[in-house]
Amino acid sequence: MSDRAGKIEIRARVELDDADDLAVHYTPGVAEAAKRIAAEPSRSRTETVKGNAVAIVSDGSALLGLGDQGPAAALPVMEGKAALFSRFADIDAWPICIASREPDDVVRTVRDLATSFGAINLEDVAAPRCFEIERRLREELDIPVFHDDQHGTAMVVLAALHNALALTGRDAARTRVVIAGAGAAGSATARLLLAAGYTEAGIVVCDSKGALHPGRQLDGEKAWLAEHTNSDRAEGSLVEVLDGADVFIGVSAPDLLAPEDLSRMADRPVVFALANPDPEVDPRGAQEHAAVLATGRSDLPNQINNVLVFPGVLRGLLDAGADTLTVDMQLAGARAIAELVGDDRSPEHIVPSVFDERLVPALAGAVCDAAGR
Amino acid sequence: MSDRAGKIEIRARVELDDADDLAVHYTPGVAEAAKRIAAEPSRSRTETVKGNAVAIVSDGSALLGLGDQGPAAALPVMEGKAALFSRFADIDAWPICIASREPDDVVRTVRDLATSFGAINLEDVAAPRCFEIERRLREELDIPVFHDDQHGTAMVVLAALHNALALTGRDAARTRVVIAGAGAAGSATARLLLAAGYTEAGIVVCDSKGALHPGRQLDGEKAWLAEHTNSDRAEGSLVEVLDGADVFIGVSAPDLLAPEDLSRMADRPVVFALANPDPEVDPRGAQEHAAVLATGRSDLPNQINNVLVFPGVLRGLLDAGADTLTVDMQLAGARAIAELVGDDRSPEHIVPSVFDERLVPALAGAVCDAAGR
Repeated sequence: MSDRAGKIEIRARVELDDADDLAVHYTPGVAEAAKRIAAEPSRSRTETVKGNAVAIVSDGSALLGLGDQGPAAALPVMEGKAALFSRFADIDAWPICIASREPDDVVRTVRDLATSFGAINLEDVAAPRCFEIERRLREELDIPVFHDDQHGTAMVVLAALHNALALTGRDAARTRVVIAGAGAAGSATARLLLAAGYTEAGIVVCDSKGALHPGRQLDGEKAWLAEHTNSDRAEGSLVEVLDGADVFIGVSAPDLLAPEDLSRMADRPVVFALANPDPEVDPRGAQEHAAVLATGRSDLPNQINNVLVFPGVLRGLLDAGADTLTVDMQLAGARAIAELVGDDRSPEHIVPSVFDERLVPALAGAVCDAAGR
Repeated sequence: MSDRAGKIEIRARVELDDADDLAVHYTPGVAEAAKRIAAEPSRSRTETVKGNAVAIVSDGSALLGLGDQGPAAALPVMEGKAALFSRFADIDAWPICIASREPDDVVRTVRDLATSFGAINLEDVAAPRCFEIERRLREELDIPVFHDDQHGTAMVVLAALHNALALTGRDAARTRVVIAGAGAAGSATARLLLAAGYTEAGIVVCDSKGALHPGRQLDGEKAWLAEHTNSDRAEGSLVEVLDGADVFIGVSAPDLLAPEDLSRMADRPVVFALANPDPEVDPRGAQEHAAVLATGRSDLPNQINNVLVFPGVLRGLLDAGADTLTVDMQLAGARAIAELVGDDRSPEHIVPSVFDERLVPALAGAVCDAAGR
């Protein structure tokens, strides 16, 4: 069986070498734990694998940069993520690829299986469906729901931005940010920046039709963004609203911008072009304009990667026994990531390495502190 | 994290020590596997953990001998079972404890998460609900559904009975069997015995009101049993229909019989009193009457335990890439278990040890052969 496929495996953590071992760890021994938990179900967190277990839930509808590929195609991606959870945070994560596109089905399925898990990691679920699913799961479950495409991206962007602003002498409250992409990542990033002290006037979110503003026919999350950002009511295309912006954050699609478009921005602009594997702007050309450039690519400096976030955040949520993921936890976590760079901060080094052994403990500790544990 | 609870853990099977490893096993490397599987979803069995993964699904409604304890209480039992799957058959099994009592919900949840698994192990779901759930899942899924309380029990009973009949000079077609218990285990045992050559006249199934026969008001599975067993239309209590029986199989409740009730049976009767931890008849008293006695207890000879079955059967189903569990596979598997005892057969030794290293390969091989692989 050594030639089998798969990036993860499940192993026994107990010895099962004789009849006595079986009697302890299976029947009749488990009956005692079952009775204790039946009397007090919350004990399942401390007496079973639940307390260290995460369900990685995807419907495969927004897989990587590939779009809707279905649940089977999501499996290699989600098991790869499970391998990262194990490697970086000693978390037992299992891929749950859901064969339905109906938010009702996804919510019901996750609710019905949540007993076995201490937290839910939603992954690669298409917008706007992901917003409804996440909101309803937050309401119905007593375990935290982390949507990596929203919360993971927003946290790592906020952390990187913290260091980029420090390097370029900017202050969040006076920084003008243009976000390209109004899906899960763009929306959550705008919301977290608002919570972190960036202003409604200082954030403009663009979808493929240009800046979101209240004069457009929008609903759902985009309508909320139009109301709570861009309070100066900028209209126009992405390139047009870049005029004078301090920061560009691309969480959208390849090649939206030509490098020379960046010359419209303020002096010494900060450019995060995070579409993967091909950024929103050619990174070689962008380097000539940007004071700080970050991408999602591992072959360039400043790789902005959710792997910096999800292992530590989930570690913290599980360690805290948290029942929800709060904005305070996200802010504290982003701060902890930024602070790890510390005095080594430079235009080529605004985020720590994912292999920095301090990362997961620092992030988990920040989340636990914010949870009051 | 070494002090955490839980009998199982999930580990990475790939190296994740540098950026290159991440690029191979996560993004962008997994995109290639995702695209291959999107084009041909069946490849998920050979290219991901799915091919070695089993969901252990329970609603906690018939937990061990404890009855309905709810899904949280089922978790320590199901993770114990997952540990056994790993230990004995190198299978990646994860507990899915479902927080609903509605067959519709259980069926929909399992259907929606089945993408991630190569087989389903239903466990401790109460009768008669378990029959509907299993039937509907068999219809809807393209992976096999094994209900341990039905198929596991039936297979190990059939294997043990094969050796017990040989020891007492009996032939299946002329053996009269009384089964106490018309739930999942009793029903499946009756069905498998019929498939194995025991006759409709030779099997009487009893519930708490006595023998099932067509004169009683019955529905569902019990109605089927009344039609297809007891063709001599025996009526009366369990004790009454024991008159002249060759074999008693108890899969019911403690202390249904006094030891002296066994004197009603034929000479040299076979007695399997499998209620756990307390058998249907006191084993010390039963030993005076029975030519062969088996129980579910580890402190007595002839422990009839489903652990003899489920690791090997699921190993075989996964190795064969089977899409369903057939009766032929169950018969072949039971035969393989019985044959392992071979020339060592004695009244105190009718089943192999669960620690017999030949067990899982023999059983898996028999299932694969029956699958034509």
